[in-house]
Amino acid sequence: MKPSIPKGTRDFSPTEVANRTYIMNTIKTSFETFGFQPIETPSFENSSTLMGKYGEEGDRLIFKILNSGDYFSSIDFKVNSLFPSILYHYIESIKSGSIEYLQINNLKKQLKSTNKDNSLQLPNDELLIILLSSLDKNSDLILSFDDEDLEKNKDYIKDVILKTFYEELIQKAKNISEKALRYDLTVPFARYVVQHQNEITFPFKRYQVQPVWRADRPQKGRFREFFQCDADVVGSKSLWQEVEFVQLYDSVFGKLGLSETTIKINNRKILSGIAEVIGAQDKLIDFTVALDKLDKIGKDGVVKEMLSKGITEDAIEKVQPLFNFTGSNLEKLASLESMLQTSEEGKNGVEELRFVINAIEELGLASANLEVDVTLARGLNYYTGAIFEVSAPKGVKMGSIGGGGRYDDLTGIFGLKDVSGVGISFGLDRIYLVLEELGLFKSVDLPKPKVIFLNFDASTDVLKMKALKSLRENNIKSEFYPDLGESNKAQKRQWKYVTNREIEFVVSEVENDVFTLKNMISGEQTNCSLSELVEKLN
Amino acid sequence: MKPSIPKGTRDFSPTEVANRTYIMNTIKTSFETFGFQPIETPSFENSSTLMGKYGEEGDRLIFKILNSGDYFSSIDFKVNSLFPSILYHYIESIKSGSIEYLQINNLKKQLKSTNKDNSLQLPNDELLIILLSSLDKNSDLILSFDDEDLEKNKDYIKDVILKTFYEELIQKAKNISEKALRYDLTVPFARYVVQHQNEITFPFKRYQVQPVWRADRPQKGRFREFFQCDADVVGSKSLWQEVEFVQLYDSVFGKLGLSETTIKINNRKILSGIAEVIGAQDKLIDFTVALDKLDKIGKDGVVKEMLSKGITEDAIEKVQPLFNFTGSNLEKLASLESMLQTSEEGKNGVEELRFVINAIEELGLASANLEVDVTLARGLNYYTGAIFEVSAPKGVKMGSIGGGGRYDDLTGIFGLKDVSGVGISFGLDRIYLVLEELGLFKSVDLPKPKVIFLNFDASTDVLKMKALKSLRENNIKSEFYPDLGESNKAQKRQWKYVTNREIEFVVSEVENDVFTLKNMISGEQTNCSLSELVEKLN
Repeated sequence: MKPSIPKGTRDFSPTEVANRTYIMNTIKTSFETFGFQPIETPSFENSSTLMGKYGEEGDRLIFKILNSGDYFSSIDFKVNSLFPSILYHYIESIKSGSIEYLQINNLKKQLKSTNKDNSLQLPNDELLIILLSSLDKNSDLILSFDDEDLEKNKDYIKDVILKTFYEELIQKAKNISEKALRYDLTVPFARYVVQHQNEITFPFKRYQVQPVWRADRPQKGRFREFFQCDADVVGSKSLWQEVEFVQLYDSVFGKLGLSETTIKINNRKILSGIAEVIGAQDKLIDFTVALDKLDKIGKDGVVKEMLSKGITEDAIEKVQPLFNFTGSNLEKLASLESMLQTSEEGKNGVEELRFVINAIEELGLASANLEVDVTLARGLNYYTGAIFEVSAPKGVKMGSIGGGGRYDDLTGIFGLKDVSGVGISFGLDRIYLVLEELGLFKSVDLPKPKVIFLNFDASTDVLKMKALKSLRENNIKSEFYPDLGESNKAQKRQWKYVTNREIEFVVSEVENDVFTLKNMISGEQTNCSLSELVEKLN
Repeated sequence: MKPSIPKGTRDFSPTEVANRTYIMNTIKTSFETFGFQPIETPSFENSSTLMGKYGEEGDRLIFKILNSGDYFSSIDFKVNSLFPSILYHYIESIKSGSIEYLQINNLKKQLKSTNKDNSLQLPNDELLIILLSSLDKNSDLILSFDDEDLEKNKDYIKDVILKTFYEELIQKAKNISEKALRYDLTVPFARYVVQHQNEITFPFKRYQVQPVWRADRPQKGRFREFFQCDADVVGSKSLWQEVEFVQLYDSVFGKLGLSETTIKINNRKILSGIAEVIGAQDKLIDFTVALDKLDKIGKDGVVKEMLSKGITEDAIEKVQPLFNFTGSNLEKLASLESMLQTSEEGKNGVEELRFVINAIEELGLASANLEVDVTLARGLNYYTGAIFEVSAPKGVKMGSIGGGGRYDDLTGIFGLKDVSGVGISFGLDRIYLVLEELGLFKSVDLPKPKVIFLNFDASTDVLKMKALKSLRENNIKSEFYPDLGESNKAQKRQWKYVTNREIEFVVSEVENDVFTLKNMISGEQTNCSLSELVEKLN
C-alpha cells in the first residue's frame, strides 16, 4: 500500500511551514498592534452548534465525527446465524412466563454455549440489547403461532424480527454523530461570546487563526482543510471599527510586500436602497451579478441581461447613474446619494460609507486602494452594514484574498440579542499563492541550521559537541552530523547533506581547539577559536 | 439552549492563548536551534493509515469522520409508507417482463405521483438504488405467489424486502468512515517520511507541533483535543542523537524556568537483559511495575509482589543489585553490567546507556538531572533502544511532562524498511499546569494593548486616529475606544474598560496636538506631543 493522504488535504514541508508561519505571524502581529486579542476554540463543536447556521449546502459540507460507540463495526450479520438459537430460547422463555431470558447476561451465556467452537464473533452488548427489544416488540406475533405453525413459519418470524432489529439499529445510528469539525471561525466565535459573556469586557476585539474543514469538492486553491485568520469586534456599532479594518488590511498587506491591493467596500443598506428603487428585493442578486459585467459586456449587454431577469425598464431607468459609475469614491457617493433619494435605508448606507471613505481620505493608506463597489454583495443574507472584499494586486490571477463585513445580530442564534459585530478575514492559502507568484518569500528565514559540524573523526566528537552547546546557548541554529564518516564515500555523503540542505557554514575539523570553518557560498575557509566561531555565526 | 462545547475540549481565553503560545514558541525555538525542521500533516488521515497502529484500545479511541454521503439522515422510514405503491409497480413491471421500472428515474416519477400532496419526504437516490436492489434480490419470492396469494401475503413480502433493504443499507454504512482524526504525531510522521522519501535528505530531523485527538474518558489533565510537540530524527543510529535529546529537554525546561526536572533514561535492551536473567519475557512488565514500588513498599513488599506474579525466587536472587539500586548513574551502570553478564543484549543496552551518560557528564546540563531508571518501560512494544521520560520538578504533583525513545523500524509499517528513528515529545498541557502552579507565566507578554485612546469628544477623533496610526507603525499595541461617551455614565464605562483589561496607559484628551497621557499603574499624568508619545510608549 502506497501511503497517501485524504483528497483536499496537504502535507507541508519545512519550507512551506516557514512561509506559512511568516504570513500568519505577520497577520497576528498586526492584529495585536490594532488591539485584538487571540482566542482559540475546539476543532470540533457540538453538531447542534454548527448545523443550520450555513444554509442547506453548508450543512452538507460539514464534516461529522462518529460517536465513539460504533454500532456497525461489530455487526457482521452474525446475529443472523445465531438467530435460530436465540429465537428458540426466547420462545421457551416467554412461553414459560419467565423473563430471565430477557436479561442480557443470560442471553450472552446462551450464545456462548451455542457458539462453543468460537466460530462466530458474538455481537456486542449494544447490539444484543437492540435484539432483545426487537424480540419483545414481536412477542404477540410469536405467541400467535402454535408449535407446529411456529416451526413452519420460522423463516417468516425470523425475517420480521430481523426487520425490526435493523430498523432500531438504523434509528440508533441516525444519532451516530453529535460532533462536527469547525466549518468557519465566526459561528464558534459567536458561541464563545455567548458562553463566556460574563468573563468578557465589551467591546470585545478578538482574533482567531485556526484551521477549518469543509467537505467541498477540492480544486486549485480550495482545500478540505485550510486556515482562516479572522479579526472581529463585537459590542460596538461605531463606524471607526470599519475604518480600522481598512487600515488593518492595508497594514498587513503592506508588511507582506503586497502593494496595490484593492479593498472594495460596499454597504448592505445601499443594496437594500437599490432593491427599493428597482422595486424588488428578490431581484437584487440578479441585478448586482448583471451590473458586475459592465466592463465585460457593456451597458447594452447588462441592460439586456437585467430585462431577461425580469427587472423592468422603468427600474433600470431609475438606477442610470450606476452605468456610469466612475470617478473618485466621493463622486460615486454623490451619485449614489442622488439616486437613492427615495430610500431612507439607502441614504443611511451612503452616509455610513461616506464616514469610512472620508476618514480614510484623511488618514491615508500605505499600500492599498480603497474603492466603492456597489456590485459587492458577498454573504448578502448575513451582512447588515459594511461589506469588504480585497483583490490581489492587478496582474495576479486570484479571487479575493480577504473579506468581511458587519452583521447586526451575530450572537442572536445563541440567545444573546442585539450585539453588533464587524469583522474581516484573511485568506491564508490564496495569500500564499500570491506571494509565491510574486517571489515575496525571499526574505523568509528558513528553518535550517546556520552551521553544521561534520563527523569525520570520533576523537573530536566531544569537542564539537561542546562547541555546539555554546552556539546553541547563543541561539545559533546548529547541527552535528550524527554518523561517523571515515570512508571517502561516507564523507561525501556528509558533504552532499550540506549541499542538499543548503547549509551556509560547515565546521569540518577541530584541532587544538581551532575550528576549520567553511562558508559554502563564498568558498572561503578560516580557522578560528570557539569564541570567534560564536561571533562569526551570531 | 445554553451554548456548550463537547466534553474533553476547551476554549482558550486570550491569556491562555498567550501562555500556550509562549510555551510552544520556546519549544519551537529550541527545536530549530538544535537543527530540527518543522513539518505539518493534515488533521485527518485515511483510516487505513491510522487503524491497527495503536493496538485494539487505541483503535477504539480514534475519532472517525463520517463520509459525506450520509445514508441515514434522509431515511425516516418513509420507504416503509411508500412501500405498497413501490411493490405494486415493481410486480407489474417484472410480470410484464419490462425492466423499465427498475430504472431509478421511473421509480422517482412513480413515487412523486403517489405522493402528490407532498406529505412524505422522498428518500434520496442512494436509498432508492438500495431499495431497487432489495426488490431484485427477492424477485423469485415475489414471483412465487399468484395474484391472490400475493395480496394475502403482502405484509410478509414487505417485511422480507425491507429486511433485505436494511441489511444492504447497514453494509453500506459499515464503510461510513474512511477518514480519522490524527491520534498522535508519530504515525503521520512515519507516513510522511515514506510518502516523501524522495524529497527528503536523511538523516531527517523534523519537529511537529500540532493538535491530536483521542476519544478517551476526559479527566484532569487529560483532554480529547490536545497539542503534541514532537522532535524526531530518522535515518541515523548514532547515539549522539540520544545525547542531543537530553540536551534539548534541558534547554527547553531551562528556558521555561523549570529547574530540577528529572530526565529518566533507560534502554529497552537492558529490560530485555533483565527478562533473560529472570527467565521470562512475559513477566517483564510485572517485574518493572513491582520494582517501581521499592520506595513505597520496601524490598520485602516488592519481592512478595514478584513472587505472587510467578517470578521465581531464583530469578529474584539473580537481580539482587536492583534492590540496592542507588548511587551515581555510573555506579548504577556498573551494577547493571555485572548483573547482565549472561545477556549479550543486556550488555549492549548498558553500553549504549553508558555512552549517553558519559557524554552528558562531559557536556553538563543547565537545569535538569539525568537519572538511570531501570523501571522505566513506557511503550515497551514500541521502543527498541533508549527510553526517556521527564518528571516535573519535585514538589509538583504531575505525571510525566515528556517522553520518548528509539524505535528501530519506524517506517516499516508503511513499507520503508530499516530506518531507525529516535524522538521525544513535550506534554504541552501538563507543562502548562506546572508553570501555572509555579507562577512562571509572570513574564509572558499578554496580548493586550499598551495604550488606549478614550473617546469623549468626537471633534478629536481624527487627531487620535492619526496618533494611533503612528503608534501602530511603530508596532505599539494600541486601541481606540470605538463608541463616543459624552455622558458621565458612558465615560465611566470607558474607564471601566481600561481597568478590566488592565491597560497600562490611557490617552484621555487631545488639545492643540498635546496628548494627555495617564499611567494607570503609577497614576502619573503627563502632557506630550505625538513624537514624545511614541517615544514614551516604545
